[in-house]
Amino acid sequence: MKVAKFGGSSVADSSMLGQVASIIEADQDRKFIVVSAPGKRYDDDVKVTDLFIQLGEQYDSGQNYEETLFKISQRFMSITEELELSKDIVARIENESRRLLRETTNTTHLMDALKAMGEDSLARILSAYLNKRGTKATYVNPKDAGVIVSSDPNGAQILEKSYEQIYRLREREGVVVIPGFFGYTETGILTAFPRGGSDISGSIIAAGVQAELYENFTDVSSVYCVNPKIVDQPKEIHTLTYKEMRELSYAGFSVFHDEALIPAFKKNIPVCIKNTNDPDCRGTMIVASKKDNGQPVVGIASDTGFSTIYVRKYLMNREIGFGQKLLSILAEENISFEHAPSGIDDMSVIIRTEDLKGDKEETLMNRIKNELQVDTVDVTHGLAMIMLVGEGMSNRLNVASKATKAFAEADVNIDMINQGSSEVSMMFGIYEENLNEAIKSLYQEFFLTD
Amino acid sequence: MKVAKFGGSSVADSSMLGQVASIIEADQDRKFIVVSAPGKRYDDDVKVTDLFIQLGEQYDSGQNYEETLFKISQRFMSITEELELSKDIVARIENESRRLLRETTNTTHLMDALKAMGEDSLARILSAYLNKRGTKATYVNPKDAGVIVSSDPNGAQILEKSYEQIYRLREREGVVVIPGFFGYTETGILTAFPRGGSDISGSIIAAGVQAELYENFTDVSSVYCVNPKIVDQPKEIHTLTYKEMRELSYAGFSVFHDEALIPAFKKNIPVCIKNTNDPDCRGTMIVASKKDNGQPVVGIASDTGFSTIYVRKYLMNREIGFGQKLLSILAEENISFEHAPSGIDDMSVIIRTEDLKGDKEETLMNRIKNELQVDTVDVTHGLAMIMLVGEGMSNRLNVASKATKAFAEADVNIDMINQGSSEVSMMFGIYEENLNEAIKSLYQEFFLTD
Repeated sequence: MKVAKFGGSSVADSSMLGQVASIIEADQDRKFIVVSAPGKRYDDDVKVTDLFIQLGEQYDSGQNYEETLFKISQRFMSITEELELSKDIVARIENESRRLLRETTNTTHLMDALKAMGEDSLARILSAYLNKRGTKATYVNPKDAGVIVSSDPNGAQILEKSYEQIYRLREREGVVVIPGFFGYTETGILTAFPRGGSDISGSIIAAGVQAELYENFTDVSSVYCVNPKIVDQPKEIHTLTYKEMRELSYAGFSVFHDEALIPAFKKNIPVCIKNTNDPDCRGTMIVASKKDNGQPVVGIASDTGFSTIYVRKYLMNREIGFGQKLLSILAEENISFEHAPSGIDDMSVIIRTEDLKGDKEETLMNRIKNELQVDTVDVTHGLAMIMLVGEGMSNRLNVASKATKAFAEADVNIDMINQGSSEVSMMFGIYEENLNEAIKSLYQEFFLTD
Repeated sequence: MKVAKFGGSSVADSSMLGQVASIIEADQDRKFIVVSAPGKRYDDDVKVTDLFIQLGEQYDSGQNYEETLFKISQRFMSITEELELSKDIVARIENESRRLLRETTNTTHLMDALKAMGEDSLARILSAYLNKRGTKATYVNPKDAGVIVSSDPNGAQILEKSYEQIYRLREREGVVVIPGFFGYTETGILTAFPRGGSDISGSIIAAGVQAELYENFTDVSSVYCVNPKIVDQPKEIHTLTYKEMRELSYAGFSVFHDEALIPAFKKNIPVCIKNTNDPDCRGTMIVASKKDNGQPVVGIASDTGFSTIYVRKYLMNREIGFGQKLLSILAEENISFEHAPSGIDDMSVIIRTEDLKGDKEETLMNRIKNELQVDTVDVTHGLAMIMLVGEGMSNRLNVASKATKAFAEADVNIDMINQGSSEVSMMFGIYEENLNEAIKSLYQEFFLTD
């Protein structure tokens, strides 16, 4: 049994839904289907979820929301008409939305419930459409499916006991269509996962039904080994381990947020990223472990927008607790640090530039200067981080050597190297203007040279 | 005018003192002479300073100290007899020692005063000997010279106002011989510098008299670019900058403690390390700045005895303040950390293994486990650190590339790379058993290959 999740771009209009139905019908094992809300059909289009958010905000601020509600109805109307389904589904969306606006007093609950309407309605539509095509399908609400979540204000977390109930979905006949993106608390309150949460839902269902595979259908045929905006048509990654995926997701690989896959990872369910528009393409498998294929680096991730805070203080090395004091100032200012390379009398802290917005930079500089009595404190902006990732790195001697050679050949100075904690990654800091040249050279060295 | 300081091995016996006198007489500019106490004459020999410490400890614990006092007298007697000097100097040592034991009630003051007797007596002997040879010389006590220090229990620090008084030593006729290792507080209490403090004294005198050069005579002809115990007859370093010296001293270059040179550095006095037994050899100059000679790395330092504490916690990256909490536990346990490379969900802290003595390791592991709620905490011993140092590194692209190539060629896996804070050094962590091979390969790459 497989769980297939279809993202927003895969369910954006009726023709895409036709493609989705064909994919489901092409493999009898695709029994559990999790769907997002309809996404953009073209560049300037608005996602259904954004329309629902707009609706809630207009209501909350006392503005007229009729036009927004009309747009939502129209969007679903065009789908149901083109698929020749009953108009009741659309009428239900309008009525249910009005009821929520009228009856829900808690703003957070209202927003979650409105946002969830996109996924919920699409699941009802897909289920009806499959039945119309002669494929037996049932819409199952997450509450009935057993998706019970915590009421954590920092983001709903699935409760372990959910899985037992979800497992019983296996007993259902035919295809089971479940809306993604939300669950219910133990007291029955609809609660949304963080944005992009349909991936989480699919992952939870896959874990619960103990699927043989979690297929994540999106609009790319596979994960590339390097950003395709920098390298033209780079090689595809056929197999990634969970660990590699997590490291890559961190820095610039935005196929989906790695944390969404945790429920599946924990139960050892393999994940396959596939393209709705090219379902026969093998895609990228994400697995717990893989054979060493002699390739030390599986992917190169990169991200920009970093800054370095450089601190120098004579005899810093002798001052026990100096590093801790510096990091505690950062923590007090609510700034997360990425890396902290240190010398004898100096220490650098690498942070995201966005964390220095407003007067934060000045505050931070002053606190470091005054509280730590340093000789020098400087800040440098415009850094990029490059991360080489691969489980094969841990037992190969020459990865650092090949990497640094690639930088030298691209005439790119390395500002920072951070290796030593993770066994499956190596991090380099360079200036942003050199990023493309560096990535191209690394790609050449690790993927095109034997 | 030059200041020449002679270390313990340079003044160990009468024949060495003959050599020292010849060196002083060979250059009219060598006006200010700072001396250590007589060091070891052969491997099993005992340094005079250690005999004075033994004397103080025996007195303090009520033991018989006559034999120790006799050994001290004998040691100086053999010098004065061989140099045919008056016996009064030796009689003075015995009388003065007995007076100190009798009259000094504060144990710290007593120990400092006893230890200082070695340098003080040697300075008196050298001065007398120079005069006997026909070279006008005067013994000047540090109090008269103006070496005024703080009474800081963590180590005496020179007071800035000393320099004005020391400058007046220039008015003295002939050679001025000053015992190293101690100064006096403002209330007149003799206070010793940390062990090896004769280097500090020489540095202070050089700064005070605004010497053109501070010559530090020891038993090596120069500083080598790599540990001569690992590489046979390595290249000599002819010129080092203060900054390079400081970085090298940190890890295994034990010519002298870099902090001893601070007073000279602050006043921009160049320092020359020379060999008493081969005074015509050019030695190693330590200067404020030097021309770029195209050589990126000036020296390779290395040291063993490091451990890594590896901590893994899922979503560590999101937990603001995690790094700070980890380092604060180390600070509370009074452990200084050397480096702290970090990954997404993990962080390593590299510390000296000696800091984990006794039950410290267990305490630390338990605190990290319990207070930080980590998934994994491991400790690995037996690491060595290698540091490449050179001011030329900052503007050369391929240093990292050459270094990592050298490790790969020696089949040595790099456990950690720390680059990014200091512009003049790059640090590598490897397993101790690979140290010699790695150093040899790095030496080949940076010093023998064009």
